[in-house]
Amino acid sequence: MTDFAATRARFHLPKGITYLDGNSLGPLPRAARARLEARLQDEWGEMLITAWNRAGWMDEPLRLGDRIGRLIGAPEGSVVVGDTLSIKLYQALAAALALRPERKRVLSDTGNFPSDLYMARGLIHSLGRGHGLELVAPEEIESRIGPDLAVLMLTEVDYRTGRRHDMQRLTRLAHEAGALVVWDIAHSAGAFRVDVTEALADFAVGCTYKFLNGGPGAPAFIHVAPRHADLALPALSGWLGHDAPFDFELDYRPARGIERMRVGTPPVLQMAALAAALDIFDEVDMAEVERRVAALSERLIQGVAQVAPQLDLASPPAPEARGAQVSFRFEQGYAAMQALIDRGVIGDFRAPDIMRFGITPLYLGEEDIDRAIEAIGEVMSKRLYEEPRYQVRSAVT
Amino acid sequence: MTDFAATRARFHLPKGITYLDGNSLGPLPRAARARLEARLQDEWGEMLITAWNRAGWMDEPLRLGDRIGRLIGAPEGSVVVGDTLSIKLYQALAAALALRPERKRVLSDTGNFPSDLYMARGLIHSLGRGHGLELVAPEEIESRIGPDLAVLMLTEVDYRTGRRHDMQRLTRLAHEAGALVVWDIAHSAGAFRVDVTEALADFAVGCTYKFLNGGPGAPAFIHVAPRHADLALPALSGWLGHDAPFDFELDYRPARGIERMRVGTPPVLQMAALAAALDIFDEVDMAEVERRVAALSERLIQGVAQVAPQLDLASPPAPEARGAQVSFRFEQGYAAMQALIDRGVIGDFRAPDIMRFGITPLYLGEEDIDRAIEAIGEVMSKRLYEEPRYQVRSAVT
Repeated sequence: MTDFAATRARFHLPKGITYLDGNSLGPLPRAARARLEARLQDEWGEMLITAWNRAGWMDEPLRLGDRIGRLIGAPEGSVVVGDTLSIKLYQALAAALALRPERKRVLSDTGNFPSDLYMARGLIHSLGRGHGLELVAPEEIESRIGPDLAVLMLTEVDYRTGRRHDMQRLTRLAHEAGALVVWDIAHSAGAFRVDVTEALADFAVGCTYKFLNGGPGAPAFIHVAPRHADLALPALSGWLGHDAPFDFELDYRPARGIERMRVGTPPVLQMAALAAALDIFDEVDMAEVERRVAALSERLIQGVAQVAPQLDLASPPAPEARGAQVSFRFEQGYAAMQALIDRGVIGDFRAPDIMRFGITPLYLGEEDIDRAIEAIGEVMSKRLYEEPRYQVRSAVT
Repeated sequence: MTDFAATRARFHLPKGITYLDGNSLGPLPRAARARLEARLQDEWGEMLITAWNRAGWMDEPLRLGDRIGRLIGAPEGSVVVGDTLSIKLYQALAAALALRPERKRVLSDTGNFPSDLYMARGLIHSLGRGHGLELVAPEEIESRIGPDLAVLMLTEVDYRTGRRHDMQRLTRLAHEAGALVVWDIAHSAGAFRVDVTEALADFAVGCTYKFLNGGPGAPAFIHVAPRHADLALPALSGWLGHDAPFDFELDYRPARGIERMRVGTPPVLQMAALAAALDIFDEVDMAEVERRVAALSERLIQGVAQVAPQLDLASPPAPEARGAQVSFRFEQGYAAMQALIDRGVIGDFRAPDIMRFGITPLYLGEEDIDRAIEAIGEVMSKRLYEEPRYQVRSAVT
């Protein structure tokens, strides 16, 4: 049994704040501080260059990858940590396209995170081989899978609405058409049960600073299905993906397996914080997390329907069709969210009109949801979103 | 006047250790600890997602870039920090090749860092447009610059021997042939005077964990000459390089200027350590650093010649032809270096036979050089490199 009071106690949560933005940046695990301090003082400070071996920095991307692997149903040795999600997505898509050289169509949807689409366009432009990126509405994906499809590239959970794709079904359909699938599970890993093996995903990528709580700028991860691991070319072929990086050969020979997806020097300080965050997941049953996400989400949806009927539910009503996030549409959503933040309830806003609330049972309980409902009720009933001070937009929202 | 005793006091140097490997990983700036702690507790911990604005995380890659820019002669707004050196090299080379679409030849040398060559090969393979990477000996570069050359891609300082290219001359010759130049200044930035503007470099990239002391896994940097900044395509076109990342448009529009070279979420924890490291450079005159590098290097070369004539100087004897590093060739160099490390003198080894010593006046003085000479003399005169325990190779050397 997961002890959610115990997991909550392992996070630093600021006084007076109800934090419903863990889908954007997870809170600070209390243990991160001591980890960072040890890494700075005992490892970097005292061991200096020798820490690459003595403190195990060099292999840490693989060890962290395996720990994430356990949360997403990936076998040992099939996940590695590094770079950013954009970079890992680029590698996955490049490798997938190279495995289907005769096909030119990449299919994605308008609910995909824009950076994934930008990276895909950049890759396609670089390749200059007539690939096309086709974007359709999420519900039209199925109908556009066909025998000319090279790669289906999707984010499982829509970053705005929380709408969740059926990973297993879409992967099967794509495979039946002879295509490969790249899944972005940035809003899935650590949020609910994910099983990339059961789904037969070819590639999966994600970040670790959202539901995994790895900290701002924490590295991304990439999973390559073992059946592709020794065939997939990394495109970004850096020395730490070389078969023998410290032989300093002039020619590139990819490492065996997932290690070829490494590029440059891993972010050693970020990895210390990520390790502290993953410790918490050792005591967590993701099936229980998923049930609790559903219960807390339902509580928020019902509560908001009562106190703020002006807010339209933008997320699917069925729990299994949603990620760990509840979103509402409201024309003055930006200002309404600013008013909420001013009252200590932190969610976020995505243009043009989406108010997002992340549902993260590791550190959120019923009392937090109730406090959010109360604040939402106050902001909406008093029309606080009309106050000019809440209209001023900042760069990051 | 740079006060080198004062800069030395700002680093944590382990007791009993003489550290001559700052060309691989700089030591811990004492102020990094408080910076990291504030970032963790006051920013991530207390501000959570709002720290992207309130703590200035979002623009920090540009602020850090400008601070590095001052050390390499780059104008404000022409340097940005992020990713790893391999990734930044890839972006620079891709952008340079796109600016010379009619030319297919990339020229580099066998003294370039292998990861740069691997990334170039990966890019060329992806492009599939008949580009070729020509590798010649460093001294043959000049003779291979010609009117069909697309891009000259070089590392200024050879990572093994410390041999230094004439950046200004080679750039001029390449420009006269109509080519562009990508300089890797990983072993130059923070090591001696660099002026990318005077040299008319088109692109320059580097890492920040060597002579800049930004910490293990610190982010890389990229400089794009302002004349190219609005033309250069980033290839790795991530959302933070978009003109309006938080508009979440489906199409990519590169940001103006250097910001288009940003890709994904920056490594916020690493940036805190890097900022602490760059603070030290605020009080440093790089011309004085360069003079002191020459003096300390000469002291080491002379001393070693006396106590260990078996070691062949692998670095150029003339200070202006060298980076901030002195290397020797010795067949049993690996074991000799292990014996030195065992005696508290840390340098490193590069296959097949190079013993490297980084010369970093910010925290090294005459007494350190003398101690190194003494230890080298002991190891060589007693043939300690023949002891079996020093022959065991580890993954990272």
